Amino acid sequence: MTTLETPGPTLGVVGGGQLGRMLAEAAGPLGVEVVVLDPTPDCPAAAVCRDQIVAGFDDEEGIRELAERADVLTFEIELADQRLLEAVSEATGVPVHPSPATLELIHDKLEQKRALADAGIPVPPFRAVEDAGDVRAAIEAHGAVMLKARTGGYDGRGNVPVEDPGEAGAALEAVAGPAMVEAFVPFERELSAIAVRGDGELAIFPIGENVHREEILRETIVPARTDDATVERAREVATDVLELLDGRGVYGIELFETADGEILVNEIAPRPHNSGHWTIEGAVGSQFEGHVRAVLGWPLCSTELRAPTVSTNLLGDVTEPGPARLAGVDRILETPRAHLHWYGKREVRPLRKMGHVTVTGREGERREEPLTIARELREAVTFTGPGDGG
Amino acid sequence: MTTLETPGPTLGVVGGGQLGRMLAEAAGPLGVEVVVLDPTPDCPAAAVCRDQIVAGFDDEEGIRELAERADVLTFEIELADQRLLEAVSEATGVPVHPSPATLELIHDKLEQKRALADAGIPVPPFRAVEDAGDVRAAIEAHGAVMLKARTGGYDGRGNVPVEDPGEAGAALEAVAGPAMVEAFVPFERELSAIAVRGDGELAIFPIGENVHREEILRETIVPARTDDATVERAREVATDVLELLDGRGVYGIELFETADGEILVNEIAPRPHNSGHWTIEGAVGSQFEGHVRAVLGWPLCSTELRAPTVSTNLLGDVTEPGPARLAGVDRILETPRAHLHWYGKREVRPLRKMGHVTVTGREGERREEPLTIARELREAVTFTGPGDGG
Repeated sequence: MTTLETPGPTLGVVGGGQLGRMLAEAAGPLGVEVVVLDPTPDCPAAAVCRDQIVAGFDDEEGIRELAERADVLTFEIELADQRLLEAVSEATGVPVHPSPATLELIHDKLEQKRALADAGIPVPPFRAVEDAGDVRAAIEAHGAVMLKARTGGYDGRGNVPVEDPGEAGAALEAVAGPAMVEAFVPFERELSAIAVRGDGELAIFPIGENVHREEILRETIVPARTDDATVERAREVATDVLELLDGRGVYGIELFETADGEILVNEIAPRPHNSGHWTIEGAVGSQFEGHVRAVLGWPLCSTELRAPTVSTNLLGDVTEPGPARLAGVDRILETPRAHLHWYGKREVRPLRKMGHVTVTGREGERREEPLTIARELREAVTFTGPGDGG
Repeated sequence: MTTLETPGPTLGVVGGGQLGRMLAEAAGPLGVEVVVLDPTPDCPAAAVCRDQIVAGFDDEEGIRELAERADVLTFEIELADQRLLEAVSEATGVPVHPSPATLELIHDKLEQKRALADAGIPVPPFRAVEDAGDVRAAIEAHGAVMLKARTGGYDGRGNVPVEDPGEAGAALEAVAGPAMVEAFVPFERELSAIAVRGDGELAIFPIGENVHREEILRETIVPARTDDATVERAREVATDVLELLDGRGVYGIELFETADGEILVNEIAPRPHNSGHWTIEGAVGSQFEGHVRAVLGWPLCSTELRAPTVSTNLLGDVTEPGPARLAGVDRILETPRAHLHWYGKREVRPLRKMGHVTVTGREGERREEPLTIARELREAVTFTGPGDGG
């Protein structure tokens, strides 16, 4: 039985970016305190959580301090040092969720794909590559392929498309480390499942449709613009993935929908995911509340859809880094069902995720309505340089 | 035009109780930082805001420090020292909203009623009282009356019902200060309007129905269980009140609905109000987001209802103060459309507001459904003593 006390349980989060910030925003109403560890002083989460420990993700002393202040440890970035977290967890007796075993399975994209394939979960054709010869062989077998760094890549970093066998060597050099290839899948649509595993409970938010450009997520549209059978299949695949992983927490599961309605797993992130930000206003509970509850071992929140919803990222539309100043925000603030999320990052950089806007519709309303509004709003705002007035 | 920058604007809030906490929770997504001033170390808002200045509400040095760190000052408690706020605001050039002139009008309940009556806004019969003779005269004129402290009362504190002329003297002694009387109004229903005044804009959330016991709010039911004409009349009266006040911010306007559908103004609070907590999940924008935007001079948020909603307070059901431990929370956490808000107060006291639960329905669903669930949940939880296990 859960008894709430004060001070409530404290969640120690490795990473204090926008995901840490939104975790803290979700934890507040539940009486759950959040302390984050992040090397950047005054990181996005700092303004809305109990405290920030300024330390590197591999700083043992910092992680140990975090554990000493926390009842449960979790993380919001792939860069977290899992072995260090595990060692500190063992030394201090403070659990870390998702569990290191789960992370190990996800961390190396080749191992991830192998585990999925071994469990009978559909994935695009893939293979390990050691050298340019392996890459050329893959191109011969599959046509164009995506060369991927096995570890450390996100937002398209570490991914290099290769079609010309003559570019195999250069592509390997660009990835600069252990790599794998995947066949390009001619997909109809990218979908995502935000899936939660609690203490014996599973839950999946409604399936979203993701629109990427330059391999960075631009918008998520919910419900996805596909048929019911495909949605059902996506939920089945996501459930199979959740059953394979067994650590508690939220997982962002990116899927491909092929032309014949097949669902393939693209990638899994062992944390709340950009494609789940819409849940804050669009579902009864959110992916962040789900993660907080899951890692604490509390009952999960409802994943029920409240209304058709679209979220769109506010990415740095600049060519050079500079102080973060977003002009045209009035348009967002004046739009009745638009919800602004501004992450408080000090510096804007090209394509950096600076915030997002979620537009909710009404129950039963056409899905196109929020999408049209969201796109208009994204076009209405722009990052300005120091001398651009405003 | 609003340009968002980092760090975003900072709101300095006098008071860091649950209202300050929920203001900070609403400010976070907007990139607005909150610093609170509160004499209780580790006040409820402290865990979710940028910083707390530990100082008394009448501590000039503390208020000045708050102003120096803020772009706009506001307050969440009636105990804020308005003259001091005004003086600091003038000295530092940092505006305070709502404006001191508005507060002066509200602060003294007798002046408030006079101003409302002078503006043609319907109020219960009232009069100033100086001595027991005046109280007896009021009883003679109106039957039972409510003797009210002119300043400083809230949650029924400072209110003494008097029916027997022989008790007039004792009642005046209980109030212990300047007093007024109001005729008891045989009302059908208590309603409330959460009204927002921005920079030239007015907005009113859907009218709620309040259920009080022992003069403390127990639950708010939205939409109110009354007819459309009465709701319309309540909105008209609330609009008249907003036009009389002219300071920016949120106002909680408590209303009586009489047997013949007349609407009378009971009391006005110059801040977000307990009867508006339902807006966090039940409306598109919330009273807290509305207050943040209003005092910053930003466009107001939408006040549109999302679904029938009920909020119920979690009050201390103890006979003696003690450490805050709420048992049975699982029932709330397991209920799909129930949203827990736990304020993080260290000590539970008899009838102290420790948290609240909001239950949302579905669009078009019967209003009774969330009310039934909310009442069951409130009955399912209880504050336990240190030795009660759990």
